[in-house]
Amino acid sequence: MNAPTRRDVEAAARRLAGAVRRTPLVGSPWLSDATGADVRLKLESLQVTHSFKARGALNAILCHAQDRPGGSVVTASAGNHGVALAWAAKAAGVPATIFTPSGAPTTKLRAIARHGASLRAVARDYDDAERLALEHAAAEGAVYVSPYNHRDVIAGAGTIGPELIDEWPDVEIVLVPVGGGGLISGVAIALKRARPGIRIVGVEAENNPVLQRCLAAGRITHVDVSPTLADGLSGNLEAGSVTFEIVAGMVDELVTVSEAELREAMRDLVAHDHLVAEGAGVPAVAALMAGKVRVGGKNVAAIVSGSNVDVATLVEVMTGAGRQP
Amino acid sequence: MNAPTRRDVEAAARRLAGAVRRTPLVGSPWLSDATGADVRLKLESLQVTHSFKARGALNAILCHAQDRPGGSVVTASAGNHGVALAWAAKAAGVPATIFTPSGAPTTKLRAIARHGASLRAVARDYDDAERLALEHAAAEGAVYVSPYNHRDVIAGAGTIGPELIDEWPDVEIVLVPVGGGGLISGVAIALKRARPGIRIVGVEAENNPVLQRCLAAGRITHVDVSPTLADGLSGNLEAGSVTFEIVAGMVDELVTVSEAELREAMRDLVAHDHLVAEGAGVPAVAALMAGKVRVGGKNVAAIVSGSNVDVATLVEVMTGAGRQP
Repeated sequence: MNAPTRRDVEAAARRLAGAVRRTPLVGSPWLSDATGADVRLKLESLQVTHSFKARGALNAILCHAQDRPGGSVVTASAGNHGVALAWAAKAAGVPATIFTPSGAPTTKLRAIARHGASLRAVARDYDDAERLALEHAAAEGAVYVSPYNHRDVIAGAGTIGPELIDEWPDVEIVLVPVGGGGLISGVAIALKRARPGIRIVGVEAENNPVLQRCLAAGRITHVDVSPTLADGLSGNLEAGSVTFEIVAGMVDELVTVSEAELREAMRDLVAHDHLVAEGAGVPAVAALMAGKVRVGGKNVAAIVSGSNVDVATLVEVMTGAGRQP
Repeated sequence: MNAPTRRDVEAAARRLAGAVRRTPLVGSPWLSDATGADVRLKLESLQVTHSFKARGALNAILCHAQDRPGGSVVTASAGNHGVALAWAAKAAGVPATIFTPSGAPTTKLRAIARHGASLRAVARDYDDAERLALEHAAAEGAVYVSPYNHRDVIAGAGTIGPELIDEWPDVEIVLVPVGGGGLISGVAIALKRARPGIRIVGVEAENNPVLQRCLAAGRITHVDVSPTLADGLSGNLEAGSVTFEIVAGMVDELVTVSEAELREAMRDLVAHDHLVAEGAGVPAVAALMAGKVRVGGKNVAAIVSGSNVDVATLVEVMTGAGRQP
């Protein structure tokens, strides 16, 4: 597969206009105080389907419906891409089958079912869901829409980029949560050639440092991962994933955050900014709070990428119950 | 005091442009399903200072600074108006003194102090804070900026109106939380003459049904009130409050919601829309959920007016702990 280009991102932005939300960019006084930077949050947590995934999923479904009318799609998802694809497929009248881990958050599984997609919440983890979805695609002739390794999905996610620099032309650093690398790839493609001075920094969960390990190895390799509060970032890279080359070539820095740092970021976003975000939504905030990135005096945009969290999990995080040592 | 006019609201909108946030209007699928209406939420919970009060406070301070350069201001507030006035006063370099109940939420008191205002969290309740602030104004020669009974405050709050119809020209019903009536007065002035077909519905806390009792009595009268989760709505009407006449003349309907309904609305906003709102922010949502207003088949905007809630209170509401019978 070829990587998408800036032109693909621009085409996606035209395709998505009016169908996805131009999410707010809001200043965060406490995070600015804590870091000595001007920190603003790009609230994809308020996006349709409650995550940035709506952008890539709808872009992919609209392209699919045009190229292969009548065809069905299948995907694997930790949850949010599944919700977004189910929503987009329903809007376009495309049959969709979604494989997820059986332990995905209830709020995500319910939303997938509510949009009328065929939900198969049967996998052990994300990697298992990916394997099952690829088998299903081969057996049923459905088109596999990867949550990260897909040209149209990446281009759709990249539409956050032009919104950011349109609203804040002076932005200097953009922090992006990283799982399979689809979001940061899209944002880097959208911003890096247009504005080479902008630093693009990716943040992985310490329990799922897949791209950093692969970059260190110089190739896509299997990485042992553990469960993380950032469930939406879980999983290894598909062989040949285009996100590996894009991240290697265009991303300035990758850092990790611990489970405790993710918890603290979720809690502090509620306490100070009165915002709900899921674990996978807060790595950029966690990295800023924990001082993982040098940002003093800079204009820093942090993408808060989603808010699909179960109430029980949110309460547990807010009260510190069940906290890891 | 004269009531503000639509022209005052338009002037306020020009004055505030760029300094307060044009807050998002987001569809609420679960609330639409539950009511059979198209329900969208106007998220003043994401406003600067985390409540709609920033609009009125900044408008009042900018007018004050122009009319009486060098003069100081004093106010009484259940919390949010105090935060907003402290923020606006700091921006304009106006000395401000804020009287609040001693039991106001910590998040509100801290924000007032952080903005550098002189905080007097010494009152028994809102009515006591109002009395103290008026005494202070008389003794010190400071200008009293009422949180609701003030022409510029009402006009500022009214700037929500043009944003609403600009973004959703087909809106048919607007639901507004009601305490002293400043917000609903501003919104009614902005919308009712321009679009007489739009129904303006106010929602009071059952424990603080001040405007409904005064309207029933045909005049402003003392109403016995009890503490409410919607702390921001608490208190009686100042003698001669202009909001009484405006609400009597322009508001189509007033309803109340119980403490249990407020709790459920806060919890469901977190669970389904992944949004934090404070008790005073959710009366419109609570009224829709509880079927207090006929909305079937209509286009309904509900103002979610603020999100300044302490984490402990939010956790208590989310877990059902400390719930009233």
